[in-house]
Amino acid sequence: MKNVTGLRCVSCGKVYQPDELDYTCPDCGTRKGTLEVVYDLHSAGDEFRKKVKSGKVKNIRRYTPLLPITNPDHLPPLEVGGTPLYGFHELTDRVNRIWIKDDSGNPTASYKDRATVLAIAAAKQKGIDTMTCASTGNAASSLAGLAAASGIETIIFVPKSAPEAKIAQLLIYGANVFAVNGSYDQAYDLCLEAVDNYNWYNRSAAIHPYLVEGKKTGALEMADQLNWEPPDKVFVSVGDGSIISGLCKGFKELATIGLIEEPPSVIGVQAKGADPIARAFEKYTGSDVQIDDQPAHTVADSISVGKPRDIVKAVKYVFENGGRYITVSDDEITSGLIELAQNRGIFAEPAAATAYAGFKKLLKSGTLKQDDDVGIFITGSGLKDVNAARKSVKGPMEIDPNIQDLERVLEEANW
Amino acid sequence: MKNVTGLRCVSCGKVYQPDELDYTCPDCGTRKGTLEVVYDLHSAGDEFRKKVKSGKVKNIRRYTPLLPITNPDHLPPLEVGGTPLYGFHELTDRVNRIWIKDDSGNPTASYKDRATVLAIAAAKQKGIDTMTCASTGNAASSLAGLAAASGIETIIFVPKSAPEAKIAQLLIYGANVFAVNGSYDQAYDLCLEAVDNYNWYNRSAAIHPYLVEGKKTGALEMADQLNWEPPDKVFVSVGDGSIISGLCKGFKELATIGLIEEPPSVIGVQAKGADPIARAFEKYTGSDVQIDDQPAHTVADSISVGKPRDIVKAVKYVFENGGRYITVSDDEITSGLIELAQNRGIFAEPAAATAYAGFKKLLKSGTLKQDDDVGIFITGSGLKDVNAARKSVKGPMEIDPNIQDLERVLEEANW
Repeated sequence: MKNVTGLRCVSCGKVYQPDELDYTCPDCGTRKGTLEVVYDLHSAGDEFRKKVKSGKVKNIRRYTPLLPITNPDHLPPLEVGGTPLYGFHELTDRVNRIWIKDDSGNPTASYKDRATVLAIAAAKQKGIDTMTCASTGNAASSLAGLAAASGIETIIFVPKSAPEAKIAQLLIYGANVFAVNGSYDQAYDLCLEAVDNYNWYNRSAAIHPYLVEGKKTGALEMADQLNWEPPDKVFVSVGDGSIISGLCKGFKELATIGLIEEPPSVIGVQAKGADPIARAFEKYTGSDVQIDDQPAHTVADSISVGKPRDIVKAVKYVFENGGRYITVSDDEITSGLIELAQNRGIFAEPAAATAYAGFKKLLKSGTLKQDDDVGIFITGSGLKDVNAARKSVKGPMEIDPNIQDLERVLEEANW
Repeated sequence: MKNVTGLRCVSCGKVYQPDELDYTCPDCGTRKGTLEVVYDLHSAGDEFRKKVKSGKVKNIRRYTPLLPITNPDHLPPLEVGGTPLYGFHELTDRVNRIWIKDDSGNPTASYKDRATVLAIAAAKQKGIDTMTCASTGNAASSLAGLAAASGIETIIFVPKSAPEAKIAQLLIYGANVFAVNGSYDQAYDLCLEAVDNYNWYNRSAAIHPYLVEGKKTGALEMADQLNWEPPDKVFVSVGDGSIISGLCKGFKELATIGLIEEPPSVIGVQAKGADPIARAFEKYTGSDVQIDDQPAHTVADSISVGKPRDIVKAVKYVFENGGRYITVSDDEITSGLIELAQNRGIFAEPAAATAYAGFKKLLKSGTLKQDDDVGIFITGSGLKDVNAARKSVKGPMEIDPNIQDLERVLEEANW
């Protein structure tokens, strides 16, 4: 933490001491007043460069000089980050190189683990033994799993409609789970109120300033794996807006400390039925972020967010980055998911495949250039929600256990 | 492949040329005649030592001098192996150290990927474009996923009763899936017959000698991660018997080339309802392996095998290793699964938790020594079969999205 100099409100710009607040700027409120962690990038940069040069560790511990961690012993004992970056350049000849960063191999099978570890380390530092969050599912299972490994009790609020596997994961990790008869957005508001009443420590999206710091490690890692020459354009799916904010911040800090030449353009991909950040970005001119919440409807449950909590950062950071937002339909998401699985053997959950669908869309529209290097973040495992994709592929062929029946079926299928 | 000198029948001992056969010894048949890959361990050892000393790669490509690979370019482009080894020594003070090797982060979320990559590399070398296998689920999804990444078509035979997520995974990867109205053992026999008829390339358990080679990489990696001082006792769950055979062979080869002092004792854990290898081991005196197949019934679907195909190796190798077999009940498996998830944040599928349940059993019975270092292999992700464990934990608490309802539920639960 010695490189952290303060926490700055993303709306009013007021800077607080690193230990002054847990969550958001009291003047601007829980939504507009999300805080950003400010570093002394001069000393952090030197330390970071030294560490990545000599370090053999291949997980997020590799990047501690640029993270708000007081005591690395407080990080959960599971290995987060260090996920593969695949060069799938042969997917098309209409761009130069295509890099896919597959985060489904994290301990709880999603990108969210990158953020959770920092919230848990902060809780441990404070001696807190009960944490809570509201989540569409992945942040919740991430908290439940990593907290279990750290001896912290969890109270989780999820919409009752969350995929079965995600709820099962929570229960098996031993979380106290509230299935809320309502949307994720309602579950979130309820969790916020509960935190006020019961004094639980909150890991809900955006509320804790360290979460975006954890999420920036995907950017640090992608650049690191490419020897500090990141792609020109990076695609990521967007729900609450925390991951994309983290990526923008991570690439920017790398450029500031001189490890990369310039940040890639970051392209946020939202589902058409849950696009409040894309809409706010459209109207943004550099001053106030106009928020227009709408109920969310999309097959991609992880990004089915109508009232995004990190919208201010997600709009401002992408504006500053020079990136953009696009939207894709549920059909495009599902096609992307199937294509990724069938061509590349990567089984992504719908929200994760959304980033790939966005890439495909820009590729088709001719927006990408022949010499573009492209990066795509796969943020969660398809095993978390098999039903969404299962509906788009035909079922197995049922046969009796004898060769005659196999012959019959093969014949019927014109094999 | 330059270090491979032959393929030896595990029953009659006849040695074939490395390229002479694809599957099993014609004299001894598909079950008794499984082949073992023989190396010139002198040259392989030198090369291996050099490679692991200088190599930065942390996946199975690190171990190629001890693997039957002609051309590393033929390996699928996904990262297999390099999975975390966790030191969970505080789980109990009744042994010295406890290492858990978590293979659930492999590309298709199971240990089986280690074997599949070698079968695919062999197929690519031969210019084969269609592969098949029978499987309880994990080997199938491993083949389907990695073959998809390698441009190979797949035909899969699974018992109709395989967990939903495993079948969904296959279909989404684009495999041609036959759901067999019968057991895994029947699906296996049908696949064998189909291979004879249609000339598909077979990746079913045990049939291809390279599979055990891939499976031995778990042993190489565990020893490597512990700086060539592996644990004293290693636990692994056993279905067909290929993984345990691979571990025994891997540790033995490391001892032969002098990288480790002596192989750990390898302890195979079977479900009580599917224990043919444990029973055969009980009767084994060093000559012929007595096979007594029985229908299998266990919650651990991946090891629900009544007619294990690698039984000869699995019995002989463990006998030679000085290890043993034990069995655990379905209740012990489920308790182990929950304990692992709730104490350590590792969500294993039932078959994977079986290894941990076996460790717990020996711990309780006082068989383990205070100064024992223990290793436990977690061979598949809990997300592959959420239903098995879901039944043993209570459901979520349903609430309406307001603080009054939360208060009511907390009060009812005596929070």
